[in-house]
Amino acid sequence: MAKSKVQGKLIGNMGFEMTLDGHRFVTDASEENGGNDLGPRPKQMLLAGLIGCTGMDVMSMLTKMRSKPKDLIIEVETDVTDEHPKVYKDIHLVYRFKGEGLSRKNIEKAVSLSQEKYCGVSAMLKEATPVTYEIVVEE
Amino acid sequence: MAKSKVQGKLIGNMGFEMTLDGHRFVTDASEENGGNDLGPRPKQMLLAGLIGCTGMDVMSMLTKMRSKPKDLIIEVETDVTDEHPKVYKDIHLVYRFKGEGLSRKNIEKAVSLSQEKYCGVSAMLKEATPVTYEIVVEE
Repeated sequence: MAKSKVQGKLIGNMGFEMTLDGHRFVTDASEENGGNDLGPRPKQMLLAGLIGCTGMDVMSMLTKMRSKPKDLIIEVETDVTDEHPKVYKDIHLVYRFKGEGLSRKNIEKAVSLSQEKYCGVSAMLKEATPVTYEIVVEE
Repeated sequence: MAKSKVQGKLIGNMGFEMTLDGHRFVTDASEENGGNDLGPRPKQMLLAGLIGCTGMDVMSMLTKMRSKPKDLIIEVETDVTDEHPKVYKDIHLVYRFKGEGLSRKNIEKAVSLSQEKYCGVSAMLKEATPVTYEIVVEE
């Protein structure tokens, strides 16, 4: 097993500054919730992590298959429960591929392998709530 | 239930740019893994989200209790499994509070309430792996 360590330092009222892989990164609460809006809300980092993780898998596989898209936009939509702790329910991903002569078969294979086998973020979130997806391919 | 939506757009080989709460944010793979290192690795976003979420809770509660620390550093350490999907195992948090005349009792209450009741990120990650913590208070 490989170790992973992250440190965050308080800035402002309730913001935290992390340094990750040499990049600076801040999360914070909104001003109406007593924060200083120095960065995005922390819970959505889970959704950003999911997009980044599965997107990386898919691009890596499609590059090896010589089926690289020109553009890829990944959208994640979910509900947040009303009760504390406020958790996500039914996370849904939409993969929007754009490019000429793309192989839908290769794209479906890459996305399926990411969701079923490689994406650790998806595997962890699936323990808390279902993660579903759809694929859109445009010329 | 409240809706939550995040969108990420491919940049470079396998980086994704998200816009969250008006802040721009990028995740990417390292150059040795075929990325361009335009931002941090996506999986660690889960740990950054955990720090930001519980830190926000704790600062909010300690401010209400008039027990605000001068500094707070939160560290998260975990292992990543060797097998795919590579997931976290046994996430451990260390809360390092600094300030004069801090109430350890109030601090313990705030951290415990965050971990047991309020922090949605912790609640979700606990479905995948145990989350433990310790508290250090320094003058």
